[in-house]
Amino acid sequence: MPQTAVVVIDMINTYEHEDAEALVPSVRKALPHIAHLLTRARESGTPVIYVNDNFRRWRSHHGELLDAALAGRHGELVEPVSPDEDSLFVVKARHSIFYETPLAYLLGDLGVEQLVLCGQVTEQCVLYSALDAHIRHFDVVVPPEAVAHIDADLADAALRMMRRNMAAMTCSIDAITLDPAR
Amino acid sequence: MPQTAVVVIDMINTYEHEDAEALVPSVRKALPHIAHLLTRARESGTPVIYVNDNFRRWRSHHGELLDAALAGRHGELVEPVSPDEDSLFVVKARHSIFYETPLAYLLGDLGVEQLVLCGQVTEQCVLYSALDAHIRHFDVVVPPEAVAHIDADLADAALRMMRRNMAAMTCSIDAITLDPAR
Amino acid sequence: MPQTAVVVIDMINTYEHEDAEALVPSVRKALPHIAHLLTRARESGTPVIYVNDNFRRWRSHHGELLDAALAGRHGELVEPVSPDEDSLFVVKARHSIFYETPLAYLLGDLGVEQLVLCGQVTEQCVLYSALDAHIRHFDVVVPPEAVAHIDADLADAALRMMRRNMAAMTCSIDAITLDPAR
Amino acid sequence: MPQTAVVVIDMINTYEHEDAEALVPSVRKALPHIAHLLTRARESGTPVIYVNDNFRRWRSHHGELLDAALAGRHGELVEPVSPDEDSLFVVKARHSIFYETPLAYLLGDLGVEQLVLCGQVTEQCVLYSALDAHIRHFDVVVPPEAVAHIDADLADAALRMMRRNMAAMTCSIDAITLDPAR
Repeated sequence: MPQTAVVVIDMINTYEHEDAEALVPSVRKALPHIAHLLTRARESGTPVIYVNDNFRRWRSHHGELLDAALAGRHGELVEPVSPDEDSLFVVKARHSIFYETPLAYLLGDLGVEQLVLCGQVTEQCVLYSALDAHIRHFDVVVPPEAVAHIDADLADAALRMMRRNMAAMTCSIDAITLDPAR
Repeated sequence: MPQTAVVVIDMINTYEHEDAEALVPSVRKALPHIAHLLTRARESGTPVIYVNDNFRRWRSHHGELLDAALAGRHGELVEPVSPDEDSLFVVKARHSIFYETPLAYLLGDLGVEQLVLCGQVTEQCVLYSALDAHIRHFDVVVPPEAVAHIDADLADAALRMMRRNMAAMTCSIDAITLDPAR
Repeated sequence: MPQTAVVVIDMINTYEHEDAEALVPSVRKALPHIAHLLTRARESGTPVIYVNDNFRRWRSHHGELLDAALAGRHGELVEPVSPDEDSLFVVKARHSIFYETPLAYLLGDLGVEQLVLCGQVTEQCVLYSALDAHIRHFDVVVPPEAVAHIDADLADAALRMMRRNMAAMTCSIDAITLDPAR
Repeated sequence: MPQTAVVVIDMINTYEHEDAEALVPSVRKALPHIAHLLTRARESGTPVIYVNDNFRRWRSHHGELLDAALAGRHGELVEPVSPDEDSLFVVKARHSIFYETPLAYLLGDLGVEQLVLCGQVTEQCVLYSALDAHIRHFDVVVPPEAVAHIDADLADAALRMMRRNMAAMTCSIDAITLDPAR
């Protein structure tokens, strides 16, 4: 069984961008599922890695990004999926979790072979990250109930692309076997 | 007007992979349009860069890849869009034209700001390359008649993703203004 | 005149590694010069970017790395060159400031063309960072009084390599013209 | 024992650059040792990978680069270390063998863990490549008799840096155990 890590994409968010209105209902729906995935990961000792946009705040660290998100207009969408003391962090500046970030290095360091992706946005950062993981020969799992979208049709197409062209498994959280990486 | 290069993706191909049957009719349809784009590029002095998979043949150079494709089962899909003496070449090993290739360096060297993408496969390498170009702040143009797909629905979704999420222009070849990079 | 940023390499340090004894006297000597460079940068509005090893503490953010260094055995080597509220931060996991970090992206975002490097270790991270900056076509300036070494001979060779093979200027801090990037 | 590949750096060369005069005598001296290393590699089935500058000739393939070098002013320095039919090729545009090239991908594909570096220039591309290999956690071996320099003092410092700071072994060719990667 491949060694696994759970990656939480862009959930530390102030929801101030222009697509927020379309996104928020989908985040609200995914939220308990992401929280459930985090609980399963934490109970099994699977590393949880938050990879989050820094919104061009190169002065802020991830604690400050979290504080701003909690204090923002949708703190209730951030609090249930907040990092705990064991969570790992990687800050990104662009869409993909791998582009110009140390994530690949961290995953190599941990011996991770399989990534479970959750978070937002299905047809954007999640899709691009699944691709960049597949290109780097990671196994990719995306539980559809744990990713949030802006455009339902494109999100559906994105999930089909992941399955068909990136060899991704798109199964429910409880069907995922977690064999923690150390 | 931004300095432009035309990128021809994976058209040097032996069509021996499992999706070839679904792909070939779409390539056949795109072929004269790609040839027309190449003619326009060459007449205007716009650089044409072939970025092509090496199919794990690390011993072969691009001349040999071309010979194999011309001698393959669908040489007639390769010949009309073959490189000429001025064509530039970058060999890739994975899906995106940028992943572990010197393309970004070459484009910087040429001063290119805008990429016109053509070739195959719309919902795979073309989509991923459009994304990786957008992440790197290139302007992206994709003429829909000059890209070939395996799955028509996913190709349509891919073009919508490019427009909506990667700021790509998807206009016809004759609507593109070519201001050549040097 | 090229737009400039000052990069402070690995000065947030607990000095617990095996080479610390050889390094500390050189850091002590460089310290007032680095502080002087920081003063000049801050007065002129030149961006100051701390690029610092995370010592595999993927849970910690840069504020925590700073706190640990200030509380460490050589807090007096950290305090005079500590970041202020305007300082930018990039965390690195390996030697070069560019390897698997968002630094290149940040510099592009700021329009930086020239890097003034200071910090430690001259014949290691400073040398590698100068090389990686030169490969990416940045102008490199290294004030010899503002970099600290472990091995004086290798540090001298490193500075000659930077001059001869990386087109770096190795001039004193007061000879540097700072034209701030924004 | 780690799986090994031999990397030949920049030996396909027309020797027309300004440092050629200083470099050629050192290449002449290293040449029989490189040829000996190639013989050992080929007899043991160890992959030999040529990583060579393309001198900004993006139109040429490696066969053409080789032809130009053989026909150049120092063809006698190229012929004895020419690629054979089993040699692999990676073209580079800048100093390091890893920067914007598919080498890391190829090495992963082959399962290589240890690199034996030979070629030119000790205190430039060989040094930078050793560093970039070390950063990526490859074991590095550099036989001093099989690398050529421009500046003897800097070359000596470079070899000390590789040993001290990049955990490189600098032993003679016959002391290297070759366990071929496949």
